[in-house]
Amino acid sequence: MQASDDAFSEWTVSRWFNTERDLHLADLRGQVVLIEAFQMLCPGCVSWALPLARKVHQALGASGVTVIGLHTVFEHHDAMQPHALAAFLHEYQIRFPVGVDAPRAHGTMPITMMRWQLDGTPTTLLLDKAGRLRARHFGAIEELQLGVAIGQLLAEATPAPVADAPVVAPAGGCTEDGCALPPQP
Amino acid sequence: MQASDDAFSEWTVSRWFNTERDLHLADLRGQVVLIEAFQMLCPGCVSWALPLARKVHQALGASGVTVIGLHTVFEHHDAMQPHALAAFLHEYQIRFPVGVDAPRAHGTMPITMMRWQLDGTPTTLLLDKAGRLRARHFGAIEELQLGVAIGQLLAEATPAPVADAPVVAPAGGCTEDGCALPPQP
Amino acid sequence: MQASDDAFSEWTVSRWFNTERDLHLADLRGQVVLIEAFQMLCPGCVSWALPLARKVHQALGASGVTVIGLHTVFEHHDAMQPHALAAFLHEYQIRFPVGVDAPRAHGTMPITMMRWQLDGTPTTLLLDKAGRLRARHFGAIEELQLGVAIGQLLAEATPAPVADAPVVAPAGGCTEDGCALPPQP
Amino acid sequence: MQASDDAFSEWTVSRWFNTERDLHLADLRGQVVLIEAFQMLCPGCVSWALPLARKVHQALGASGVTVIGLHTVFEHHDAMQPHALAAFLHEYQIRFPVGVDAPRAHGTMPITMMRWQLDGTPTTLLLDKAGRLRARHFGAIEELQLGVAIGQLLAEATPAPVADAPVVAPAGGCTEDGCALPPQP
Repeated sequence: MQASDDAFSEWTVSRWFNTERDLHLADLRGQVVLIEAFQMLCPGCVSWALPLARKVHQALGASGVTVIGLHTVFEHHDAMQPHALAAFLHEYQIRFPVGVDAPRAHGTMPITMMRWQLDGTPTTLLLDKAGRLRARHFGAIEELQLGVAIGQLLAEATPAPVADAPVVAPAGGCTEDGCALPPQP
Repeated sequence: MQASDDAFSEWTVSRWFNTERDLHLADLRGQVVLIEAFQMLCPGCVSWALPLARKVHQALGASGVTVIGLHTVFEHHDAMQPHALAAFLHEYQIRFPVGVDAPRAHGTMPITMMRWQLDGTPTTLLLDKAGRLRARHFGAIEELQLGVAIGQLLAEATPAPVADAPVVAPAGGCTEDGCALPPQP
Repeated sequence: MQASDDAFSEWTVSRWFNTERDLHLADLRGQVVLIEAFQMLCPGCVSWALPLARKVHQALGASGVTVIGLHTVFEHHDAMQPHALAAFLHEYQIRFPVGVDAPRAHGTMPITMMRWQLDGTPTTLLLDKAGRLRARHFGAIEELQLGVAIGQLLAEATPAPVADAPVVAPAGGCTEDGCALPPQP
Repeated sequence: MQASDDAFSEWTVSRWFNTERDLHLADLRGQVVLIEAFQMLCPGCVSWALPLARKVHQALGASGVTVIGLHTVFEHHDAMQPHALAAFLHEYQIRFPVGVDAPRAHGTMPITMMRWQLDGTPTTLLLDKAGRLRARHFGAIEELQLGVAIGQLLAEATPAPVADAPVVAPAGGCTEDGCALPPQP
């Protein structure tokens, strides 16, 4: 497990499926969160990573675990557009929320995948109730080990709500996604 | 098994993958032929029908069995166009020839699927060395039973080559694919 | 999960395998304990319960989980004597400690199985670090769910050591195993 | 496949299960025969060889394939006596005939196993309708390949019945099983 003191950085999603409103990691505090980064034409994602995510959703969705799929397309972009993903989710009966990782204007890797420095698909990420990244794994994952990791996070106390941080005007500057204008007078 | 005295009707394929030249059933006489009609977003096709077809190809391809995939898209057409199929075949490492069942101008079912009156995907068809349909099965198929059926067809004598049939001018008339002109004087 | 405030009652074992000394639950405080009650000729035990117990032993044995097999023979006694169990454990490469639940002088069910009121084999029991029974399950068990339960128990604090209970002279009386003599003057 | 012109040598069975009368290979002419040589405490036998034999029995038993189990115990003899085998067959719901390969007076390997020069368990043997050995395989076997081999044998013509061979008085002499008395006047 990799621990971090800070809340994990948000995703950037261009479109959601299986949810009526946009989701943000900040809204999921108090939940253990499993994020499955996948591609619909990735054999390992289809044969075991998504079935395992679905099993977690069905078995633990009512017990404090939120499962989120993130469609992180970094190859065969033409074949994995959102309309194709919609067909895939329908045929494979995937019911948990799935967000499309927003493509960048240039480059093959989408925004969130790059921000989180994922190695490929499938990558499974586990966040604790305070929103901190506690585990990430690229490739095949043992069901038993995943269960143990989730159980340990479920057993942790729910963090106390934090007072709203004061609003700070952005200082301007560039991220990989673009450059923000400096604060206007 | 369903037997038929006549050679099975040909497919109508708009594009081939994994073969340098167009294939015709008539060219496969002397071979036992397994045709796997599938869709790339059909879960049963992906999880067991195509792996089983691949296993037949690898184990028996050098022993007189030809495996052909037929992409019979009858739903989610936008998501299963040939460029998407190409990505799928690449990612799933499918090496045997795959033909795209030619779409009709109107209607959801492609030409060959309609001609053969398939029930859906996956459908597995077995042809004997004389090109006659000997078995067809829609849905899950037992590996043992498929092996027995193939073994029985392999054990049959190769039919003697047939003298070319005399060319008969078509009588005219319509099929579902279109209407042929009557014989011209 | 079934919770209990008290430490779980000990097993009564007539012979141990894979351990040089007798084991007692009381010696395993501080460990999460998985007990797999099985019979060597029970198909479900052989096909999935023992492989799962072995997986827990291999993956978590160094992380605070002790796995114990208990051979609770209640049928086909002649075929499942300790010498047969020894051959079975050797062939199936089971390395964690296995105790033979001591047979009763009369009746088909062995002592511990009766004391614990097990429903049959396989039965999986989970004890927390304080030695309390926290979960028991007869029959097929989901690997994910087992992992979650273990993870939750692992996350609990280790109980403080308890001062030795004062020795109390037994009051005499009968249990199913026999009748103890009353305290002698 | 290994072919042989002659009928395969008979087994020597000390006790049968799941059949009311003794079985002899000579009585099975006209049938394709699958013989599964196994031991009840051999993990590979239990996990896949016997389930596959059972599948053949269920799927093809009415179509000309006879399945016979042969319990060829060459280790842990004490744990695999006939009364233990009876319990095993009951618990694993094996319904096809199973013969106990007769032990030799000395040596660990039983009579038939030695006569047939088997390498170990599980060994799968296939005999054609004329009683000739056509395939034998030690260890894991592909379900597809087994099906193909059975299908090929099923497709062969049933051999014409042979006139009873004239009764020839035994010449006497020794085999590994013992020594026969010379013909008596």
